[in-house]
Amino acid sequence: MAPVNRRFGGYIFDLDGTVYLGEKLLPGARETVGVLRAAGSRVVFLSNKPLQTRGDYAEKLTGLGIRTSAEEVINSSWVLTQWLVHKAAGASLFVIGEPPLLTELLEAGFRFTEQADEIEFVVASFDRAFDYHKLQIAFDAIRAGARFIATNADRYCPVPDGGLPDAGAVIGAIEGCTAKPVEVVVGKPSPITVNALLNHLQLAAEECIIIGDRLETDIRMGQESGMATAVVLTGVTTPALLAHSSIRPDYVLEQLSDLLGWCS
Amino acid sequence: MAPVNRRFGGYIFDLDGTVYLGEKLLPGARETVGVLRAAGSRVVFLSNKPLQTRGDYAEKLTGLGIRTSAEEVINSSWVLTQWLVHKAAGASLFVIGEPPLLTELLEAGFRFTEQADEIEFVVASFDRAFDYHKLQIAFDAIRAGARFIATNADRYCPVPDGGLPDAGAVIGAIEGCTAKPVEVVVGKPSPITVNALLNHLQLAAEECIIIGDRLETDIRMGQESGMATAVVLTGVTTPALLAHSSIRPDYVLEQLSDLLGWCS
Repeated sequence: MAPVNRRFGGYIFDLDGTVYLGEKLLPGARETVGVLRAAGSRVVFLSNKPLQTRGDYAEKLTGLGIRTSAEEVINSSWVLTQWLVHKAAGASLFVIGEPPLLTELLEAGFRFTEQADEIEFVVASFDRAFDYHKLQIAFDAIRAGARFIATNADRYCPVPDGGLPDAGAVIGAIEGCTAKPVEVVVGKPSPITVNALLNHLQLAAEECIIIGDRLETDIRMGQESGMATAVVLTGVTTPALLAHSSIRPDYVLEQLSDLLGWCS
Repeated sequence: MAPVNRRFGGYIFDLDGTVYLGEKLLPGARETVGVLRAAGSRVVFLSNKPLQTRGDYAEKLTGLGIRTSAEEVINSSWVLTQWLVHKAAGASLFVIGEPPLLTELLEAGFRFTEQADEIEFVVASFDRAFDYHKLQIAFDAIRAGARFIATNADRYCPVPDGGLPDAGAVIGAIEGCTAKPVEVVVGKPSPITVNALLNHLQLAAEECIIIGDRLETDIRMGQESGMATAVVLTGVTTPALLAHSSIRPDYVLEQLSDLLGWCS
């Protein structure tokens, strides 16, 4: 496979399975990020997971040895909040999601209501307290004309013993009773996330590379937007999965330090 | 439209929107059923709704003036129970459903468990106490190899002020996180329900007519199985809906007494 023999202006790193696995940094992650930053490249971390805020991720990375500010992290709850601020500032929402997402939206000036006829947007997200009561409100609101959007469409979130049903389950439940497909999913691989990244980096897509462990989200998004792409085999993608996929990243990395081919 | 100028051996009546609406019998229902029974035809009542047992429906009909025994009612929870008894008697189940369905399955000798690796079938049904905990168990069980079946696939159950998310929402949530489509849905318009009906009536499909207010379930099932079909315009189907549908029932009834054209 081709070595990475150029340095990019911007590096977009997926987090889980790419930079760390659970609570442990993956081999070469700290050194690689350090070299890239020292060489003058811009680095941003990207997650679809709406269970933590940007600040939480920055704290975790810093704790693991990669000094990171909240501004260097982009996740689906932040992208959703920015998108909504732009499209419908101050709108009335009903959110099926966890406290960090609720807090982010409240702080951005949105109002929450359970009155179906007042709800302008139903927001579906990862919610471990999802229940029939919330489903009923979403159903009533969408039948009364509310728009239906989501932070992300991941089916489940991998955990050491298996997985946790993610926003894909909430979307499925709402679509299952309303027959109305979700209108907008802002998370990877949506172009809404691409725009947020490029705005943040102040770079064109062609100057950036996205590095992740998932072909269907990380690599697909990079390819659709004109970025370079690198899959790293430290997460869900195995060599066998890669061989059978129609998605072909530009680079295949055993570990993140393979990004530094241009140094040697 | 053609008058119903023959008498059938078996009459299969949908309930809500056909025989009654909420707590009131629809015009002509009692008289029509009385004439058919007196003439020697067999009558059975059919509902997809798994929130009551056959006995509950029989009691309701009797209370409204149509004397009915539990054996003359077929609903999706009973069809599911019979199907499972035939396919996997005594199996270990995890059921997302309400107490009448649970009772029916328990009485038929099935075991319930929340241990994912012991669950042989996940049963999705209408459940107003559906929550994330149940979703997690279903997810874990299906990932561990459990089969995934459902009583019915209705999106919502109409009520005077709107609707209640029905089994379609539970199916959607499970499919949304597992990516595994439900294997078997026993309720209308499934051939499993047709078999249960014909077995009960001891008649061939050609000798039966199904009367209902929904084109997509009642009429479609009748047509696919070779029964005669009659839509009655006292429920969800309006003349405009009928005109725009590709599903063409044999008969269109203003009210149930139009079934008695052969008498006059």
